[in-house]
Amino acid sequence: MSLHVGVDVGGTKVLAGVLDADGRVVRTALRSTPGRRVSPGMVEDALTEAVAEVADGRTPDAVGLAAAGFVDVDRERVMFAPHLPWAGEPVRARLEDRWGVRVVLDNDANCAAVAESRLGAARGATSALVLTLGTGIGGALVLDGHVLRGAQGMAGEFGHMQVVPDGRGCECGRSGCWEQYCSGNALLRFARARVGVEPTMLTDLCGGRPERLTGPQVTDAAEDGDLVARQAFASVGESLGRGLAALVAAFDPEVVVVGGGVSAAGDRLLDPARAALARHLVGADHRVLPPVRVGLGADAGLVGAALLAEEASAPGGAQMRAPSSNGSRGSRGIRATR
Amino acid sequence: MSLHVGVDVGGTKVLAGVLDADGRVVRTALRSTPGRRVSPGMVEDALTEAVAEVADGRTPDAVGLAAAGFVDVDRERVMFAPHLPWAGEPVRARLEDRWGVRVVLDNDANCAAVAESRLGAARGATSALVLTLGTGIGGALVLDGHVLRGAQGMAGEFGHMQVVPDGRGCECGRSGCWEQYCSGNALLRFARARVGVEPTMLTDLCGGRPERLTGPQVTDAAEDGDLVARQAFASVGESLGRGLAALVAAFDPEVVVVGGGVSAAGDRLLDPARAALARHLVGADHRVLPPVRVGLGADAGLVGAALLAEEASAPGGAQMRAPSSNGSRGSRGIRATR
Repeated sequence: MSLHVGVDVGGTKVLAGVLDADGRVVRTALRSTPGRRVSPGMVEDALTEAVAEVADGRTPDAVGLAAAGFVDVDRERVMFAPHLPWAGEPVRARLEDRWGVRVVLDNDANCAAVAESRLGAARGATSALVLTLGTGIGGALVLDGHVLRGAQGMAGEFGHMQVVPDGRGCECGRSGCWEQYCSGNALLRFARARVGVEPTMLTDLCGGRPERLTGPQVTDAAEDGDLVARQAFASVGESLGRGLAALVAAFDPEVVVVGGGVSAAGDRLLDPARAALARHLVGADHRVLPPVRVGLGADAGLVGAALLAEEASAPGGAQMRAPSSNGSRGSRGIRATR
Repeated sequence: MSLHVGVDVGGTKVLAGVLDADGRVVRTALRSTPGRRVSPGMVEDALTEAVAEVADGRTPDAVGLAAAGFVDVDRERVMFAPHLPWAGEPVRARLEDRWGVRVVLDNDANCAAVAESRLGAARGATSALVLTLGTGIGGALVLDGHVLRGAQGMAGEFGHMQVVPDGRGCECGRSGCWEQYCSGNALLRFARARVGVEPTMLTDLCGGRPERLTGPQVTDAAEDGDLVARQAFASVGESLGRGLAALVAAFDPEVVVVGGGVSAAGDRLLDPARAALARHLVGADHRVLPPVRVGLGADAGLVGAALLAEEASAPGGAQMRAPSSNGSRGSRGIRATR
């Protein structure tokens, strides 16, 4: 029986997992990401441990990596990652050499889009716009089952579309970026500003310390009827719909999928987004509005990476890639080094 | 020798033309567009006259139509056009029946993108973002030589991306649309507001009547050193670059092409656009900026339509389409009815 491992390499954690035949995650292994100021080798060690644990003594047929960073168009290197010590690192070949198994690499939002396209809310659609609302906005356009990669592998960076001239400052160094108004961070900013100011159960939930408030707490409070929490989702949802109007006008996708942690709120987020999309989309009276659907959960990146691994090792698969020539020099099998 | 006619069906004029072997327009025929409140048949009459004149007694192998309106995904109908009496009209089949020759139909911005991709500034690029700056903004994304049509044939509507919340009112009924800041209309609004107010040769050019000022006059005045005219292009160029930053982040095209009447100003428009793109594009330090090039002139739509006609009648052409079953019932050859 074949074994394909998917790994989500995020800024705070490394999560490896294996899917069953229906694409459900059946086994996972978690490690902390060592951080940005360590050697690249330390991140590779954490990856190796997580993959070894989930592989449970077997050698995978292939491993897929979903990296939180810019991946080059050849999918060989992580060019830049805000929370990882990789800058131009040839991650794919290096891990393939180390492990002696086929490794495929892609950006985490692209992997999530693959998962939505194969198994999730975009299944069967010829085109899909997939957003991942987490700390920021990840995005991808899927056309005929393929992620639009762009000339430099950098397509899908929707989060830094400017929606307010001279608006809120963004970590990217510019201002007014969409993700400053539509993301987990935007949700928390809205909610935290009201802790101790307006009557809200959020104040108790964070013990009166707004900086301790978490996204899931806001989601739970909204579920329990808290007005401020609901307003936070309505605000983010409105921004979501406005931005979607620009992207739907540009791409005209068959379906829009919104995943990531913030999407756990479901229609509380998506209903205001749908309403804003209908208000702001040009020619809305002359077209069918695309459905806006909730995506897979927080493990979409992992699932997509595992699917890419599976496709890479399938005979004649489009994503197939021969192991690098010196792959056999790597230690056979995957063993934790510590 | 084969004969392929391209027709640009615009809001004010119908322009038919024929290309030589190098893709240059060698013969044109012009008619006024009868307007919006006439019968669809009257527009078809104008088209027939223009095509008959340019065909000069011969029967074309195929005719391509570049329509200023929304074309359905099957490229059979003009669903909606602000300046034409077509609303869901099956234009392609009707003209094919009337003329007894193969007819292909597409949106004018898509046709211009085809022209740029085959013969213009995007030639040889695997992906191109093509904008047509005229009264408003026409746009298309070309991927591997094909225009991205979208699920409903409505992709590429970049002009109504909201760039200023609650900004300038737009003809589309919304506000803050990009084309309110970046188009021929935006250029004229900027220039007209300064006629008789600031020292500018534009005042003389329009006889002190700002409403008579034309785009080409602003272009000429800028060329002659007029400061206000140059500021108008700098303003539109800045907006162009800001919007391009959002689209380049989304699509990551190999090249950006800006055509249409406003682009006649060349680098006077594009230099500020390039500077704004570099300032506003996320990750600009970690990527190569795509070149921003001037596109073909005002006849790009016509040229693209003629190329589509050529491709449609080529044996085994991807765009090939059999004449509708009752095509032979139409009058053979194209003759003006008046």
